Formats: sequence, structure tokens, C-alpha cells
Amino acid sequence: MSVNLAAPKPAELFPIAGVRIGVTEAGIRKANRKDLTVVLIDEQASVAGVFTQNRFCAAPVQVCREHLGGAQGIRAMLINTGNANAGTGADGLARAISTCRALAGHLKIDAQQVLPFSTGVIMETLPIERIEAGLDAALADARADNWLRAAEAIMTTDTAPKAFGAQVMIDGARVSITGISKGAGMIRPNMATMLGLMATDACVNPAVMKQLATELAEGSFNRVTVDGDTSTNDSFVVIATNQAVHPTIDCLSSSAGQALRAAMLGVAQQLAQAIVRDGEGATKFITIKVEGGQTTAECRQVAYAIAHSPLVKTAFFASDPNLGRILAAVGYAGIADLDQTRIDLYLDNVLVAVQGGRNPAYREEEGQRVMQQSEITVRVVLGRGTAADTVWTCDLSHDYVSINADYRS
Amino acid sequence: MSVNLAAPKPAELFPIAGVRIGVTEAGIRKANRKDLTVVLIDEQASVAGVFTQNRFCAAPVQVCREHLGGAQGIRAMLINTGNANAGTGADGLARAISTCRALAGHLKIDAQQVLPFSTGVIMETLPIERIEAGLDAALADARADNWLRAAEAIMTTDTAPKAFGAQVMIDGARVSITGISKGAGMIRPNMATMLGLMATDACVNPAVMKQLATELAEGSFNRVTVDGDTSTNDSFVVIATNQAVHPTIDCLSSSAGQALRAAMLGVAQQLAQAIVRDGEGATKFITIKVEGGQTTAECRQVAYAIAHSPLVKTAFFASDPNLGRILAAVGYAGIADLDQTRIDLYLDNVLVAVQGGRNPAYREEEGQRVMQQSEITVRVVLGRGTAADTVWTCDLSHDYVSINADYRS
Repeated sequence: MSVNLAAPKPAELFPIAGVRIGVTEAGIRKANRKDLTVVLIDEQASVAGVFTQNRFCAAPVQVCREHLGGAQGIRAMLINTGNANAGTGADGLARAISTCRALAGHLKIDAQQVLPFSTGVIMETLPIERIEAGLDAALADARADNWLRAAEAIMTTDTAPKAFGAQVMIDGARVSITGISKGAGMIRPNMATMLGLMATDACVNPAVMKQLATELAEGSFNRVTVDGDTSTNDSFVVIATNQAVHPTIDCLSSSAGQALRAAMLGVAQQLAQAIVRDGEGATKFITIKVEGGQTTAECRQVAYAIAHSPLVKTAFFASDPNLGRILAAVGYAGIADLDQTRIDLYLDNVLVAVQGGRNPAYREEEGQRVMQQSEITVRVVLGRGTAADTVWTCDLSHDYVSINADYRS
Repeated sequence: MSVNLAAPKPAELFPIAGVRIGVTEAGIRKANRKDLTVVLIDEQASVAGVFTQNRFCAAPVQVCREHLGGAQGIRAMLINTGNANAGTGADGLARAISTCRALAGHLKIDAQQVLPFSTGVIMETLPIERIEAGLDAALADARADNWLRAAEAIMTTDTAPKAFGAQVMIDGARVSITGISKGAGMIRPNMATMLGLMATDACVNPAVMKQLATELAEGSFNRVTVDGDTSTNDSFVVIATNQAVHPTIDCLSSSAGQALRAAMLGVAQQLAQAIVRDGEGATKFITIKVEGGQTTAECRQVAYAIAHSPLVKTAFFASDPNLGRILAAVGYAGIADLDQTRIDLYLDNVLVAVQGGRNPAYREEEGQRVMQQSEITVRVVLGRGTAADTVWTCDLSHDYVSINADYRS
């Protein structure tokens, strides 16, 4: 079950010159499912990533950070599902490095040119023998039009693959962008998501790639939440292969930089929202807009307080306009000098509360009507300033409990 | 359904000299249930309260804060269930004051000597006519041995009343303590709980009552959480009637002050834990101890991150030792310089993770055995210092979703 999640359109998952992807079934956790992916990147690509802020970050995240900081260009990614290689201590770190060495050996590159990614259960030993045994098959499968199969191969509790693409003209050249992501629980990304990968053939100076990756994450994955649990493995990687025919983008504020950034942000937002639409047990897609704040940070803080409230989320699940719960969440969001008498609350276009109290003209039937929709916008006006921010989330259903009570079985 | 919640023992709910309680059915939300309580307090009592930090605090909370700051002694409390009188704006404030005036009229006291409390649905108009019409019956019912009926009358989604008592010798005099509380959802008290009331006949200087109330809340209600939602109405009031025969306690650090504080804290912790044991949908009672921190504040921060994680809570519900979820919560708790390689994790006495990785000697059957218990202790050792703190919580079950999806129906 997912909420209006668009199925990937193969024609829009553009091959990216300079990127080939191979997928196989390595039997990492379960037999007969795609669980191992290699991404092969031509020389001269610009690669940047942002990673979880969780202090219990997984071994592969630690390795990625180190390898991205190295002098040599990144040439490959190695992604497994079924095991997160997190909470595994020094042994986990050694195992992550071992898989990098194995892939590097096949490709005749340095192990530091490989980025490893793992997703799945925490605190279990990574079965490197199975991963290394699967490399031949994955490499034999490598081709440019494999994005959809990769989106399938990185799924864990996801019910559907998440893949989007776009094209944009940059200085007269057609540039392609394709990305994939996975969710669907332990989702409250903080500087990245569980796993997001985007590639473009655009030409981007390596020095601005990090900024681009950060801005894209900030405008997409860092604005979604399912359950407020920031994963140990969140990783978002952006690749520019520099193979399109246009002058290299040296600055994001140039018109070419802005055009590329906007097109990539559009894809990134679709990828991030897809994670919420396929959030564990989700039956509704909720957009939370907070306006009239003093800073965007405080707007986002209020939006997340609403988005994380189990009481608000269960009310959405029940289509019950028990909207005082939203006001309660606004109140405990942590804005010390918030004045409740200046706050208005809208559900879509219905004015529910005005100046901190129930709108006398509000009728329960209007709230009920909006609550029954599968897509709902909550709008809170704080009356303190002109800043605004938006967060996307889903409801909390019986199925969330079922899925997470049974995850490992 | 509740988790090992002790039924109130009438013989231990000591009448407190100087306090009488009356209860009635006022039909505030539903017919045929006790929903209105008056607490009558003799002159010369010392009264203090702590209240929600939610900026959307309810009208009665605003009135309580003002009345407690007034020059006149508090002589009565008026408690209704079925309606929270929160998110009700200026009209709600006027209605709360109106009920105080009505009770004060009956008692020939000033309205400022009355503390009002409301609990129930947010953002609905308080039916003051029904409350005021019920005052005669409530007052006619007033007596000293009515604590159990009051515990029943303040229930909302609670499945059972919560009331505890204790006696302690202070300077040769036997002093009694009795308290009641209610939960059971929107529970993440911040300086108080949804509603907790304790009274003692001990003699306590009014100047130290506020400190006593704050310390009791800090050691009890501020250490429990059900769903992380801080209510708009949290209120915790402590009454000392000064009618026992012992020298007045002027200082909490005196031996008499310490004895009284310890006895009252014992009752407060039972009241607070009772709220968790009767948490909405709870099937397990979880004690989370975090040790080896630099400060108690950071230990509590980590404990709350674990206690609020929907993934951890659903794993407890399922008796699934998916304990990496606990490490993930430790990691995102917000301690910037946390070193994962120094962290140990115990489930009761089972050492699950050591130095941030799975304990090689840990066997899944041991974790499974503990997870199946109805009472479980999670112990996290941070390896950063000598501070420690404890938080009590419950699991997240299907019934939590059901209860909150259907709350208003």
C-alpha cells in the first residue's frame, strides 16, 4: 500500500552517459531477490554525498566519508540490502572495507575509489562472502539502462521502487538527470535519506558538487519524515559525469547552475516524497506548511513537531478532524516565546482555528471532508514574521505497527 | 489493559486532615459517569503547582498560574473531565474564570482562591452551565475519604484509577500522604503531568512548597512518556495542610525535609509510573536507564530518544529483540560528540552490545527471553562520565492506534 506513488516511467529514467549499473541476487538475507547493486562511474566524474548525522552511523557511512575525502576520483558504488552493517563495531568497519577491496580488485582501481552502502537490519554481521561471491554476476549485468532494476534491488520494506528522471537544457545542451531512492521506515533524514542516488551527465566542477548535494538534500530529503527515527545509514549521493556538451558549471548561482539545480531539485523532491508516499503503513500523504515564523528553522521545527506527533498521525489515519492535537503539537514544538493568541490553523483552505481558538465559522463537516482525502495540506500561521517552511509526512496506521512488529520475521 | 498496574488499596489512601473531596456526574461529555470533582482545602494550607511547558497551554492552566501567584491562599480545586478547554482562545479563558467564580460563590471565598483543571478533548467549548449546575451535588458529596472516587472521576482514556498513599514519621509525628493521577495519552510531561494531585497533612513552609512540587515532578512525572506528546493541560498540584503535629519544615535539606520529600517522591513515582502502566495500548512497562554520561541532562536526552522511537516501541510490542534500533536512537539523540565505540547496551542483565558492536557472546535467545517479559529494563552505558538518569515508558501497540483513531467517537 502506498499513497499515490507514481510508478517509475521507464522512458523517463534516462541513461546517464558515464554511469552503468549492474544488479544481482546474492542471497544476502533472503534467496531469490535482487539485493546487490554495483554502480560503475567513468573517470572524471564529480561525486559528492551527504550522510546521516546519527552518531551511531553505520560502517559503510564511515567508509564513504573517508573515501569521498580522498584524492582519487570515485569510480564505483557497491550497495547491498538485507543488512545495514550498523552497530557492528570495528569488525563491521573491516568488513565494509573488505567489500570495497574486492570490487576494486575486479575493476583494477583503488579500494578508496569505491563507496559502500548497506541497508537492512542493524547489529548483524555483514555476510561479505556472499557479497564478494555476487560481484561477478553484478558486474556482468552492468549497463546504462538499469536504473529501474537498481531501484528494485535497494528496496527493504518498500512496497514499490522509487525512480524519477528529468531533462533540462543547459547552455544549449540537453542534460539528463536520473535518480532512485528507498525508504520506508526509520525515516527522519538529517542531512540525507536512507539511500538516495542521483546522476546527471551535466558538467559540474567538483568543487561545487558538495554544495549542490547539500542543497538538494536540504530541499528534499531533509524535509520528509515517516516516524522520526533518523537512520544509521542515511546516504545521498550525487554524480555528475561531465559528459554532456556544455561549459562546466563553476558556480551554482549562474543561470546554468540555477537551471541544473532546479531540475535536480525537482527529481530529488519526487524521490523524497516517494519515500513518504510509501512510508510504512501510510494511507495519507500530508504536506505541513508553517508560515509567519521569525526564521525558517523555527517553522521547520514546528512542522516536524506536528509531523512526529503520534496523536496527529493517528487522527489523520482515522480521518478524524481532532485538530486540537495539531495546536498541542505547535505548542510543544519548543518556541519559548510563542504567543498562542496569534496562531491560525488551516486544513487545506478551511480555516479551523483563528487567534489560537476555534474559528466560530468552522463546521466539523468541512474538516471531516478534508480529512477523508488521501492528500492533505496542514497550514499553520504563527503570526511572528515572514519566514516559512514545508515538511512532508504520512499518517500512523495499524499497518505501521504490524510492519515494524514483524520486520525481521 | 494495563501493565501490572496495582489497584488502589483503600486502606492506604489516607484521609488528609484539611482536605475534603466531592464528586458528581455533571454530564459534561457523556451521561452516567463521574466527571466533576471539587477539592476543598482548609485555610492555612501550603499549595504549589507545576504546569505544562506547552505554549498552547489550556485556559485553566493559565488561570491556575495566575491564582497561585496571588496573595490569597488556595482554598479549592475544580476538576472536570471530558473537555480540556484548550485551544479555545479568549472565550475559553472567560469560561474557566466563570467556573471559579461559581464555586467561590458557593464557598464564600474569592474566585482567585480556586484552581480550575480540565482534561479531555481539545478545541471544544467548555459547557460551563453543566459544570455550574453540578456544583451543589459535588459539594454535598465532599468528605475526607473520597480519594478513590476522585481518581475515578478524573479518568479519560485511562482503564483504571490511579491512587497511592504513604505514611512517614516526621519529628515523631505520623504524617500521611495521598495522591491521584490520570493519563493515558498525550503523555510526555514537561514540568508536570496531565493531572497529578498529592496532599499531605505535613507542615511545610509555603516558601518551600514550590521547590518541593518542582523536585517531586522532576523525579517522577518528568521521567515518564507514552507517546512524546506534551499535553496542553499538564498540571501537578501538591497540598500541605499543615495540620500534623510537628515543627514546620522550612528547608528541604533538613532531615525532616528529606524524610518528607523521599516519602512524597515514592508516591509521586508510583502515580507517574501508573500512567505509563496504563498508557494507551501499553502491553509492556519499560525502564530506560542511561549511565556513564557527562551530565544527567544528556542521559535523559538519550533515554527519551529511545523511549520515543516508534521503531523501538513496536519492537517491544512484538517481543522482537531487534536491538539495533536502540543503538540507532542513541545515535540520533543529539549528543554531537558521542563516540559509538564506547557504548554498551544491556537488556536486563544481558550484555547485548559492547563498544558499539554486537557482543560476540550475545545469543538471540537471551534477548528474546527478556523481550517476552512484561517489565523490561534497557541499560545504556555511554562511557563518557559518571552521570545517570532513568525514564519510564511503554510499548507502541495496535491498540494505541485504535484508541487514538477512535478517541472522540
